[in-house]
Amino acid sequence: MASRNPRTRPERLVVVGGNAAGMSAASKARRVNPALEVVALEMSPHVSYSACGIPYFVADLVRESSELVALTPEQFQRHRGITALVRHQVVAIKPVQRQVVAVDLESNQERCWHYDKCIVSLGASPNQLEIPGADLKNIFAIRTLQDGIRIRDFIDTRRPKRGAIVGGGYIAMEMAEACRLRGVEIVVLEKTPSILQGFSSEIVEQVRGELDSNEVSVSTSTTVTGFQANGASEVSTVKLDTPEREIQTDFVLICTGVTPTVDVAVAAGIRTGTTGGILVDWKQKTNVPNIYSAGDCVEVRNLVSGKPDYIPLGTTANRQGRVAGENIGGGTSVFRGVVGTSVFKVFGLEVAKTGLSKAQAEKHGFDAACNTVRAHDRASYWPGASEITITVVYDKRSRRLLGAQLAGKAGVSKRVDVFATALHNKMTLDDMTALDLSYAPPFSPVWDPVLVAVHAARGKLQ
Amino acid sequence: MASRNPRTRPERLVVVGGNAAGMSAASKARRVNPALEVVALEMSPHVSYSACGIPYFVADLVRESSELVALTPEQFQRHRGITALVRHQVVAIKPVQRQVVAVDLESNQERCWHYDKCIVSLGASPNQLEIPGADLKNIFAIRTLQDGIRIRDFIDTRRPKRGAIVGGGYIAMEMAEACRLRGVEIVVLEKTPSILQGFSSEIVEQVRGELDSNEVSVSTSTTVTGFQANGASEVSTVKLDTPEREIQTDFVLICTGVTPTVDVAVAAGIRTGTTGGILVDWKQKTNVPNIYSAGDCVEVRNLVSGKPDYIPLGTTANRQGRVAGENIGGGTSVFRGVVGTSVFKVFGLEVAKTGLSKAQAEKHGFDAACNTVRAHDRASYWPGASEITITVVYDKRSRRLLGAQLAGKAGVSKRVDVFATALHNKMTLDDMTALDLSYAPPFSPVWDPVLVAVHAARGKLQ
Repeated sequence: MASRNPRTRPERLVVVGGNAAGMSAASKARRVNPALEVVALEMSPHVSYSACGIPYFVADLVRESSELVALTPEQFQRHRGITALVRHQVVAIKPVQRQVVAVDLESNQERCWHYDKCIVSLGASPNQLEIPGADLKNIFAIRTLQDGIRIRDFIDTRRPKRGAIVGGGYIAMEMAEACRLRGVEIVVLEKTPSILQGFSSEIVEQVRGELDSNEVSVSTSTTVTGFQANGASEVSTVKLDTPEREIQTDFVLICTGVTPTVDVAVAAGIRTGTTGGILVDWKQKTNVPNIYSAGDCVEVRNLVSGKPDYIPLGTTANRQGRVAGENIGGGTSVFRGVVGTSVFKVFGLEVAKTGLSKAQAEKHGFDAACNTVRAHDRASYWPGASEITITVVYDKRSRRLLGAQLAGKAGVSKRVDVFATALHNKMTLDDMTALDLSYAPPFSPVWDPVLVAVHAARGKLQ
Repeated sequence: MASRNPRTRPERLVVVGGNAAGMSAASKARRVNPALEVVALEMSPHVSYSACGIPYFVADLVRESSELVALTPEQFQRHRGITALVRHQVVAIKPVQRQVVAVDLESNQERCWHYDKCIVSLGASPNQLEIPGADLKNIFAIRTLQDGIRIRDFIDTRRPKRGAIVGGGYIAMEMAEACRLRGVEIVVLEKTPSILQGFSSEIVEQVRGELDSNEVSVSTSTTVTGFQANGASEVSTVKLDTPEREIQTDFVLICTGVTPTVDVAVAAGIRTGTTGGILVDWKQKTNVPNIYSAGDCVEVRNLVSGKPDYIPLGTTANRQGRVAGENIGGGTSVFRGVVGTSVFKVFGLEVAKTGLSKAQAEKHGFDAACNTVRAHDRASYWPGASEITITVVYDKRSRRLLGAQLAGKAGVSKRVDVFATALHNKMTLDDMTALDLSYAPPFSPVWDPVLVAVHAARGKLQ
């Protein structure tokens, strides 16, 4: 593989990590430059699946794990001319030789691939709990489809009665719902004083109410100090920081966030930023020639604060991958950043946010304030109309919108996108009151909750 | 009433027409200036009701007409200190004397009110069909709550089997659904070759499919030439332009659009614009000192074309009323215009638009093109995921978004608001591809239909 004759060998892209970002990049690059040879190397047994769908597979709302897989390696080969090798762990990138070295986990053989272009898309790794018993059986991380299959298999075959979730973010919420739908009693253990960092107290309270009515127990300001096993090395007890408290459980889900996977990249001389993610320019290029990066391993620019940020999300991974792929293929595309929009479902509640929380805004030097309203999602006389809670974060000096958080039974997930679009355009609260939004009684009141929230916040400024 | 002593008499606002715009103005003006005396004069028996809710009252989804009434005259008096007089028809505004003259339709007495500030908010009148038999019984316009009550009473008491709807706009669609829900056979008669002017052929086709599957018959390129009666002067036959065609019916709904109600205003020297609506400035002031105007009688600026337009909608009426009220009360507020956002429901379909259609854009001198996609509204593996049709209208030279039209079973009404917010900010298709929109499998695919539509249209430009 050492000598290459440019006349006979096509240009080759090597994709290091074959998930959302990597396979988006691979597909786009091949569309832009059909002569490109593409090899994707993925450690897990699957490429290109919906990681965000895992809770619904565990809940059995999605019956087969194959439904979460967008394309199999065979389909990538057949339909897109892309060679995707699963169970291949990349162990080194050698920029001088322009080589990627990977171990085939089936044969344990090491192989290396020459690259002309390379994209690092290794994603992120679950934060480990460095406590006694963390390696016991039936303690699950939730990251790869393989993790999801393991949890689903465990619930299907073992019919557990009780589970504990460590962490109180949105994945913890989704998994709590999934487990309850499978008839499992659930306790959520959150280290800090509140679940759902970045949401206003009003919205946290509403989610707590929804968890309560679905019999999910939540314990905040609670640190897990260790796990104990039964005879079969299976977790049976969660030890908490209050000595007298411990919880009996049949399994544990670790939902304590993720850290960008950058070891292989850093060893290759690729620079990371202040957040720990890989530094890229607007074209998704790293500092090392011919190496791009995209997805959950990358630091992004927060377009609201103007500062570096780390917000690992499937949407961003796909968009960055597409931009990287276009540039790798010879086109021109830029990815300027994110405003930080996300949404999740917990039982009957839709919960979403975009932009900065008040605390984040203050940290970034804004003269931040926030205001919360409750407003009807549809005409009040419409059968089934309910209320939405909206918290608006704004800058008192410039009157600019800085963020929004929403929760309600319906009509939340797309309303957050109106706020996101406003953030992209740096709209002030005054600008937003002029928005000509749609109205019909089955869909909204004549004053849409977005406008009610913006008017109320603006009223505080006058 | 002729002499006024400024020391003893408070400033008075007279509201000419007490509906969405007028009563919004009244309420806002009183909030800004609690010393203001407010008298509102309304010809119909109701003030401040949801005209947009009438189809749902006819359908019996809303049980009582009172549910559509936001505030009664008694409530306005008690809670807001506003005197609202119903069954009072304004017959003259005298700017020199600063007087409004109205007839009390109960007593047939004429009274006049001095004003310091006046707002004309007379709304719009249904376009009349100037054809034989147009004044027969059981031919209904749909404008006021009183009209809605008449239709509902007719259906409740007479249990009609067959109805005909003249016109093919969104109110015709809503009323067709309402009548079908009451078990009435419906035929829609549209003069032009297509229902739903301003929508792309793909979306019209989808609505036609929805009407078909709900057994609403639609006849386009069909002009109604007259009505014939049975013995009791009740309509029984609709005559069409094709001589051999006539339709037997038990009642007729006239949904042929509206014209701004400006007679009283024009007689007072208030100027109207090219669209026939009253001309106002950004503060909702007319050319006549101390007279404001708002609502369906007013011409608006279309922020996409930059030209005058006439788009009578409840949202605009409320927003204009609020702006006028703030200025009347002594504050400062501006209404710059609309982008033309609307949504309606027809059976299981949500249909929405914002901005310009391709034909409108061409008329206004844009180098317009449009592109239509179908995209999943939620992750394809999510139970119940369906497809949304989106038509994007754009300018080929500037790459600016000019409009969007959407139809689908769910998730349409708020997605149109993302397009509306983009139009307010004059975003290009390129700008829009960078939008950081929310994603979770129960609410959208990882590429939201908005982004799919924008990417596809942008692809046509390259």
